[in-house]
Amino acid sequence: MVLIEKAAAGDILSISRLMSEVENDTPQGQRALDELYPRGGRAAIIGITGPSGSGKSTLVNRLALTLSSSPEGEAVKVGVIAVDPSSPFSGGALLGDRVRMRDLGTMPNIFIRSMATRGALGGLARAAEGAAQVLDAAGFGIIIVETVGAGQAEVDIARLAHTTVVVEAPGLGDDIQAAKAGILEIADVLAVNKADKPGANATARSLQVMLEIGAEMAGEAGADIDARWHAPLVMTCALDGAGVDELKTAILAHQDWLRTHGGLEARNQTRASDALEKAARERLFRDWRRELDEDAYRAALEDVAARRVSPRMALERLLKP
Amino acid sequence: MVLIEKAAAGDILSISRLMSEVENDTPQGQRALDELYPRGGRAAIIGITGPSGSGKSTLVNRLALTLSSSPEGEAVKVGVIAVDPSSPFSGGALLGDRVRMRDLGTMPNIFIRSMATRGALGGLARAAEGAAQVLDAAGFGIIIVETVGAGQAEVDIARLAHTTVVVEAPGLGDDIQAAKAGILEIADVLAVNKADKPGANATARSLQVMLEIGAEMAGEAGADIDARWHAPLVMTCALDGAGVDELKTAILAHQDWLRTHGGLEARNQTRASDALEKAARERLFRDWRRELDEDAYRAALEDVAARRVSPRMALERLLKP
Repeated sequence: MVLIEKAAAGDILSISRLMSEVENDTPQGQRALDELYPRGGRAAIIGITGPSGSGKSTLVNRLALTLSSSPEGEAVKVGVIAVDPSSPFSGGALLGDRVRMRDLGTMPNIFIRSMATRGALGGLARAAEGAAQVLDAAGFGIIIVETVGAGQAEVDIARLAHTTVVVEAPGLGDDIQAAKAGILEIADVLAVNKADKPGANATARSLQVMLEIGAEMAGEAGADIDARWHAPLVMTCALDGAGVDELKTAILAHQDWLRTHGGLEARNQTRASDALEKAARERLFRDWRRELDEDAYRAALEDVAARRVSPRMALERLLKP
Repeated sequence: MVLIEKAAAGDILSISRLMSEVENDTPQGQRALDELYPRGGRAAIIGITGPSGSGKSTLVNRLALTLSSSPEGEAVKVGVIAVDPSSPFSGGALLGDRVRMRDLGTMPNIFIRSMATRGALGGLARAAEGAAQVLDAAGFGIIIVETVGAGQAEVDIARLAHTTVVVEAPGLGDDIQAAKAGILEIADVLAVNKADKPGANATARSLQVMLEIGAEMAGEAGADIDARWHAPLVMTCALDGAGVDELKTAILAHQDWLRTHGGLEARNQTRASDALEKAARERLFRDWRRELDEDAYRAALEDVAARRVSPRMALERLLKP
């Protein structure tokens, strides 16, 4: 496919077109992913998540800029995939894009793709993963996947990313303690943004306490404390760029740690297993439905809706005609 | 099964035990759901969701109390299922429970069950649905399912509920606009809690604007505006109980609307279809894996992890040996 060759060679227009095919799950998109897959696996995927209002998008812009120049001074291609699962109107994503375009629109080494909810959240995670695969195969060294919130989408993204950065900020609600415990679980690096705002230090302290409790609980649960990565906390101010270099250093340190502790290998295994399992579930169900008598399925649905029989028993009957 | 008979008769201890079986997905739990299913379908399921810090739990307590006495003065059995997908430490859920127990622990017509994340979020939604089915079959007229946040769990709960109440509060972040658009999509009723706090009216106004934009967009998308339910916004103060009766009225009005506009029927159809599909996916994958040669599956996994072949093509080979 010419499009694939051009995308793999880094042609921006071809990359965009391919991503659209992948997002829409067209046959061409599926074939493209098959062909691109063996060329990928080299990019560092960085997930960045945090609540709305944490200044996450501005921080991502800054980070993309710093990451696009390597310590040795060579250019690194950085891709940004901004996923907004909470915005069906895509107003949020568009707003973020305007800021983004102003800051990054003219940078030759930075590619940006925004995605808003299109019905299924699962579809969004799939589309984001597909977009990351396209960028990976196209030679992007670093791929940033940005999401809002603290739901299943974040957990899915964390599975996709090698390093997950959780962004918090002061003044986003006073009983964050309970709500943040879950999201801290997935954090490899914690950033407290808006560090110049009142309450930033208090927010950092309470997050630090929670990180320590989490580490202690993991220790009690039998995890070897020395073998674990201890998520560092970095104070940032995305508006003036303070702390962004420290954040970059923390991210690169985690990537080093992954490489030296077998973490990359382990994550690749998990991702391969997830991907194969997901593909199998989809395919088996589709094939089964295609071969199944439509009337029998409809009758089973009616029985379940009318509560004559449970879903599991209705399925049992469909399986053994 | 004696346990099922006792639970169906309303015995609290049997209901609790059955819920544990269902949560742990034991064979007995699965059989119980099969047996209970035909007895259910009568409860009104109310989903209540909103961010941490919105005072949601206190509001749920108040609502459970008001709903447990019907307009005619008879007692209605109310079940509360509190789901906290963001708390793997379950500290949040426990904290909420203490408040709950103080307020509701001695009420004979109110049953409370709390669930925190146990690994998979999907598992949590399944467990909550199972618990709701047990309560439904045990003659609970109203079941409140409470969740935190704005992720996939909420969307799943909204599919389970007949009426979804989204709770907001002032002071939970200043650019809520973008983040809340998604959650507003699922709201049948909106509650602005902490109505006595500064900023409550501003929060209500901005939510109202977003509701109107949402309604307009739906109108442009071709939905018949007169045939749609217009989510009302209610100001509440859970601490002193102000507005809770209005919230109850709004919820009951939505239930009436569902009954008179075929909405209950439609939701039951959707739920039946979802349930049958989910059961089929699980079962087909499990059966396939059981029959599959373990070495072949492991080899495919290795090929995918080493990027020799894409997940989809590896699956293709496994399906056609």
